[in-house]
Amino acid sequence: MRVERARAGQRRDVPSLVESARSGDPRAVARLISLVEDASPRLREVAAALIPYAGQAEVIGITGAPGVGKSTCTSALVTAYRRAGRRVGVLAVDPTSPFSGGALLGDRVRMQEHATDPDVFIRSMATRGHLGGLAWATPQALRVLDAAGCEVILVETVGVGQSEVEVAGLADTTLVLLAPGMGDAVQVAKAGLLEVGDVYVVNKADRDGADRVGRDLRHMLALGEHREGSWIPRIVRTVATTGDGIDAVVDAVTQHRAYLRESGELARRRTRRAHDEIAELTLVDLRKRLDLLPHDRRLDALAERVVAGELDPYQAADELVAEVLGAPSPS
Amino acid sequence: MRVERARAGQRRDVPSLVESARSGDPRAVARLISLVEDASPRLREVAAALIPYAGQAEVIGITGAPGVGKSTCTSALVTAYRRAGRRVGVLAVDPTSPFSGGALLGDRVRMQEHATDPDVFIRSMATRGHLGGLAWATPQALRVLDAAGCEVILVETVGVGQSEVEVAGLADTTLVLLAPGMGDAVQVAKAGLLEVGDVYVVNKADRDGADRVGRDLRHMLALGEHREGSWIPRIVRTVATTGDGIDAVVDAVTQHRAYLRESGELARRRTRRAHDEIAELTLVDLRKRLDLLPHDRRLDALAERVVAGELDPYQAADELVAEVLGAPSPS
Repeated sequence: MRVERARAGQRRDVPSLVESARSGDPRAVARLISLVEDASPRLREVAAALIPYAGQAEVIGITGAPGVGKSTCTSALVTAYRRAGRRVGVLAVDPTSPFSGGALLGDRVRMQEHATDPDVFIRSMATRGHLGGLAWATPQALRVLDAAGCEVILVETVGVGQSEVEVAGLADTTLVLLAPGMGDAVQVAKAGLLEVGDVYVVNKADRDGADRVGRDLRHMLALGEHREGSWIPRIVRTVATTGDGIDAVVDAVTQHRAYLRESGELARRRTRRAHDEIAELTLVDLRKRLDLLPHDRRLDALAERVVAGELDPYQAADELVAEVLGAPSPS
Repeated sequence: MRVERARAGQRRDVPSLVESARSGDPRAVARLISLVEDASPRLREVAAALIPYAGQAEVIGITGAPGVGKSTCTSALVTAYRRAGRRVGVLAVDPTSPFSGGALLGDRVRMQEHATDPDVFIRSMATRGHLGGLAWATPQALRVLDAAGCEVILVETVGVGQSEVEVAGLADTTLVLLAPGMGDAVQVAKAGLLEVGDVYVVNKADRDGADRVGRDLRHMLALGEHREGSWIPRIVRTVATTGDGIDAVVDAVTQHRAYLRESGELARRRTRRAHDEIAELTLVDLRKRLDLLPHDRRLDALAERVVAGELDPYQAADELVAEVLGAPSPS
């Protein structure tokens, strides 16, 4: 009886955590994100409890090469949105690190000025080693912040590579940052970021070379295809350290938001995101089923028969699929 | 009746192609590789017909940065193995190109000297756009050359990136080429090739900087872990354009081959390769089943319900998995 009650208590925990998170309790938000990140057995319970409250927040992705000033720009945007009275979430995703920031508030140096603001939720997330990288835990973490009443969520990639493009898949509006030097227009093009930006931010606009970065970018964007009635990416110049130009970024994001709603693109983007997330989870499940097959049916046993020339790999795959599907093996 | 007979004739075609290939007919070999590459409906038939004859060839992977002399080295190795009276296959895999070399013989400039040798089979393969890249068509193409009696098959990657490491997964013995300049030891380390080489070939050894490349490489290899009784990678210096050092490469490959047999590692490597191939084909099949689901059950419909907050993504994935498990076969 005791065990039963203890278990029941544990099960009630998730809905009450969600309730606390909805009232703005940062510890509840932090706990829920940890459950999501650690792939806790209660992950499914968390997902089910969150889903009715998700889908309200504006999700803004911030990407660009290291050194262009992403953190500083994110912090300046937080300031701007807070001035407008909006509750803000920040998710800093680092696919190159295995370490997550456990603290929800002020766990990053550049965010210190927001650390005591009860309406700002900041979280670092490490996705290295996670199956599917960003795709896996980040959408759930976004739903936690969403359910906690964040009206704007800024998702910033730390690190480099494929994640820069992936973050665009998570956001309603994607900001691509450039700066003279490390993250110029050519590098942005090479990283595949010319196709994903809704607003291009030329940061460090007070430095030598900023004019050229902007000119090159405009030139390259003009080379791309443009469909009638589709969004024309904006280019905004900023000096994030002083806040110069940040209001123009917010304006551009607001215009893009209006375009998304009016064109029906917002619904399409969100459906595509859910689509990708479900497909990922489905394949993870099917892969798990492969691993759970009895020993004598498993891949290794089949692989040995292929090496021995008794089965071809397609026949072996047929056997595995039949096993996964639960049907009797065809051989 | 006519149609039936024509069909029966077509079906008999694959075994007779395999028979011709086994007797060394280059056109039959070329045709079989094309069937494999094009994911022809007869691919499964080809796989089944080949498997009893596969597993005899020594598969040697040749990888390294562009410009280190892979083609020249491959050609010099062909000469060396032909001098020893062995039938040789060459598969040049280019993951960055969508164009395959249709001609089996002499379709590459550096291989011209072998174009008239009936015991040398050379094929270019483009894997860009193929699901799973290298993993997908290359193992079957290797089986074609294997069944055609090639005792040695050289698999050379053209192009760059992940494929450099992938080729190691296909080979019994992996040669990693370096050269002063483009493909030095630091770049080899960055490309993840310090973990995959069985024999390191410092090519262009007559050039300035070759000593440093060799010294750096030795230093970096020494930093790696070494288990008692495991193979210690060899380092060989060559000038592939003159053939200098190529016999030493062949010796090192022969020594590695002996190690593979005696240690049981050859069987383990081949089983792991078959394992990866089966897993890939299984996931391709399961993914196909997702695409074949009826419209109202499909991902898009579920994605819309997730966006509407009616279903969480895990529940949606559960529905899909259940559908896949109960779905009729895709073939």
